[in-house]
Amino acid sequence: MLETLKERVFQANLELVKQGLVIYTWGNVSGIDPASRLVVIKPSGVDYETMKASDMVVVDLAGNVIEGSLRPSSDTPTHLEMYRNYPEIGGVVHTHAVWATSWAQSGRAIPVYGTTHCDYFYGDIPCTRELFETEIKDNYELNTGKVIVETINALGYNAMAIPAINVSHHGPFTWGKDPMDAVHNAKVMDTLAEMAYLTEKINGNAEKVTQHLLDKHYLRKHGAKAYYGQK
Amino acid sequence: MLETLKERVFQANLELVKQGLVIYTWGNVSGIDPASRLVVIKPSGVDYETMKASDMVVVDLAGNVIEGSLRPSSDTPTHLEMYRNYPEIGGVVHTHAVWATSWAQSGRAIPVYGTTHCDYFYGDIPCTRELFETEIKDNYELNTGKVIVETINALGYNAMAIPAINVSHHGPFTWGKDPMDAVHNAKVMDTLAEMAYLTEKINGNAEKVTQHLLDKHYLRKHGAKAYYGQK
Amino acid sequence: MLETLKERVFQANLELVKQGLVIYTWGNVSGIDPASRLVVIKPSGVDYETMKASDMVVVDLAGNVIEGSLRPSSDTPTHLEMYRNYPEIGGVVHTHAVWATSWAQSGRAIPVYGTTHCDYFYGDIPCTRELFETEIKDNYELNTGKVIVETINALGYNAMAIPAINVSHHGPFTWGKDPMDAVHNAKVMDTLAEMAYLTEKINGNAEKVTQHLLDKHYLRKHGAKAYYGQK
Amino acid sequence: MLETLKERVFQANLELVKQGLVIYTWGNVSGIDPASRLVVIKPSGVDYETMKASDMVVVDLAGNVIEGSLRPSSDTPTHLEMYRNYPEIGGVVHTHAVWATSWAQSGRAIPVYGTTHCDYFYGDIPCTRELFETEIKDNYELNTGKVIVETINALGYNAMAIPAINVSHHGPFTWGKDPMDAVHNAKVMDTLAEMAYLTEKINGNAEKVTQHLLDKHYLRKHGAKAYYGQK
Repeated sequence: MLETLKERVFQANLELVKQGLVIYTWGNVSGIDPASRLVVIKPSGVDYETMKASDMVVVDLAGNVIEGSLRPSSDTPTHLEMYRNYPEIGGVVHTHAVWATSWAQSGRAIPVYGTTHCDYFYGDIPCTRELFETEIKDNYELNTGKVIVETINALGYNAMAIPAINVSHHGPFTWGKDPMDAVHNAKVMDTLAEMAYLTEKINGNAEKVTQHLLDKHYLRKHGAKAYYGQK
Repeated sequence: MLETLKERVFQANLELVKQGLVIYTWGNVSGIDPASRLVVIKPSGVDYETMKASDMVVVDLAGNVIEGSLRPSSDTPTHLEMYRNYPEIGGVVHTHAVWATSWAQSGRAIPVYGTTHCDYFYGDIPCTRELFETEIKDNYELNTGKVIVETINALGYNAMAIPAINVSHHGPFTWGKDPMDAVHNAKVMDTLAEMAYLTEKINGNAEKVTQHLLDKHYLRKHGAKAYYGQK
Repeated sequence: MLETLKERVFQANLELVKQGLVIYTWGNVSGIDPASRLVVIKPSGVDYETMKASDMVVVDLAGNVIEGSLRPSSDTPTHLEMYRNYPEIGGVVHTHAVWATSWAQSGRAIPVYGTTHCDYFYGDIPCTRELFETEIKDNYELNTGKVIVETINALGYNAMAIPAINVSHHGPFTWGKDPMDAVHNAKVMDTLAEMAYLTEKINGNAEKVTQHLLDKHYLRKHGAKAYYGQK
Repeated sequence: MLETLKERVFQANLELVKQGLVIYTWGNVSGIDPASRLVVIKPSGVDYETMKASDMVVVDLAGNVIEGSLRPSSDTPTHLEMYRNYPEIGGVVHTHAVWATSWAQSGRAIPVYGTTHCDYFYGDIPCTRELFETEIKDNYELNTGKVIVETINALGYNAMAIPAINVSHHGPFTWGKDPMDAVHNAKVMDTLAEMAYLTEKINGNAEKVTQHLLDKHYLRKHGAKAYYGQK
């Protein structure tokens, strides 16, 4: 079942390696089928080099394995929490990419220092609070999803306006309209994390972009008045 | 029309990827035909992997599309402003390359710390002021070109003596005698941006080169008394 | 003799180069045969490009060459000291990888700043004290092993719980259940060294993970209650 | 004439590119024939991609072109000054490699922070003083060689004991027993420059190695009592 989506999720997982975002088994991608609301996700701890499209695991939004002989990614409950809360999401990615993860470990949001950032994300990329002891001990992966949702909702923006977040002391999650779009956002986030780092080192008093510049760049690529790209 | 120039602009766009200056669609190259004063430029938001030489768009200096079925780069008005003001320019490049863009985001000029810089650029690589709100809201891309010209003219140097600039909170533009030369200067600028960053971190009181050293290195490669390279 | 282990040690040495942990001859891998307690190790100063599996040298735990026409790695006494003290070790690696070595040169332990670290190492990765003059002058390589053992024992943890250490002003040693696992840990250590560096630069007051988070991530991958990966 | 040396100098120039030390034409290698004391050097400003072994230029120690239709590297007088002063040198390399050049631009010597450094260089890698105005205006490239010799002689060490130096605000020169050995030292110097940078950022009070450790590592690879590598 869902062979096309399995192939797309599989290819998106390989793209993580190709883009230099993942070594060994340090990442996972999932995608959701809009009709059945079933989720296809990478199996846990399987090497990218030997993984096949048919290894992808199908789960429902409650976390039951519907098809597949391998265990789904241990981060599956985090992915599912995202899909349950934001129906517009078509794919979710988690990595331990170096630059983004270093910001996660520092506990700071990635400030919007330039137009590259504005082209993709409509504001700073947040970092969640740390999880409490009880949230870590039981249902850790589900609670990781809950703290992401809590952060997005507390800041009051649309999840698709800033399709990336860092979980404190852990690492980045990104999402998009489909699995490959979520990988694309993971690569962009990591590059922005690198440039924000360098910007602060070059100028200890670096300032964020103005709201005007943020509006201009974000809205020329997204929304009704977009004029970037082809029709 | 202009098939040779289209091929050269196309190859120069691919070279941006090969040199590691561009991911996804984060860059564009244009070239001008000296006879007709028509400009060939990359289409907007098209993947480098599927792009063909025949996708290049021909526009006149007023921005009218003369040939091509795709939209030209959204940065076209910036490129055209450069060609209108500096007839000696044969090619223009814009990227979001990591090192140069980080300096743009910091709002600082790239200081001339060594002979590598002197070999190509006859002084610091400037960073423009930020655009005003009105300049961002209307004709943003044209105004980006205008603030570049304003900066060059205010500093009072020949545009070909320092064929590179950063736009504040945005990123680098470079130019040259032809499209590939502009790409070459983009690579050099990014490498200089990296080395200037490291130089300041190694020595918080790093000093710029003397005028004597700048003259020596720049003039042994450029101008009437050059003696670098082959005749 | 031990042809299979020779092949595995040889392949693990090549993997060091493939993973970008070694240039020229700056690294070595060994493995131990559990039955005979003989050790197979890379020869000293031989190019990776021309090295063959049959060049691997067999030594006993006292350091006697049992088979092989080439000299064993000059670091052999360090490897042997590890095998003698920790029978659970199946492979040992030494490199001068850039990030880990820079921490060694700084004399600091690598703090556990995030879950990537917790997934592999159950606490900070220590750095030994400097060797005394007498320890350097005589039996230097053996004393390098002794100071590693001294550090692990003084801190009081199981050697397999943190299978990596830095020797002060020198560089990293890692180990594992077999030679390739030790290489895997060398790559992980170097990546953690990079991220710890960046974390401290992004936030000068960065905090280590809580014991709860360390327990959660380490124990979901290791030990009786592990649930990461496939059964 | 000297076809074998031409091929070796040519291959050593290509190795600079392969090792990531050079982009475009930013480097040059030469080698000397011990019998005739003639020097073979890369031509000036020729692309590495189209360069052939037969393009190498033969000059004598006075700088006269003995064979070759192309101009020799503009840095030829610097190379010749090295050969004239240190007869034990067999090859010389100049690059603008990023890490080493950043130290040159900072004007600081590269401190000996670890054993990787000790394995190759018997102390800090020095940085020359800046050239005076008169030294820049006339015979600049010769004076670059003279300030290198001045620095080595003032510090009072054997040129082969530390076969690498930075010229202030310019970049690294390295040498060796033959052209490829000089390239090897260029790669090592750049890696040490990177690790010294990181070491100081990880620990603002990082200390250099003791004389004991420097002696141990340098002398186990060099000199009469060396025991590293194969006999």
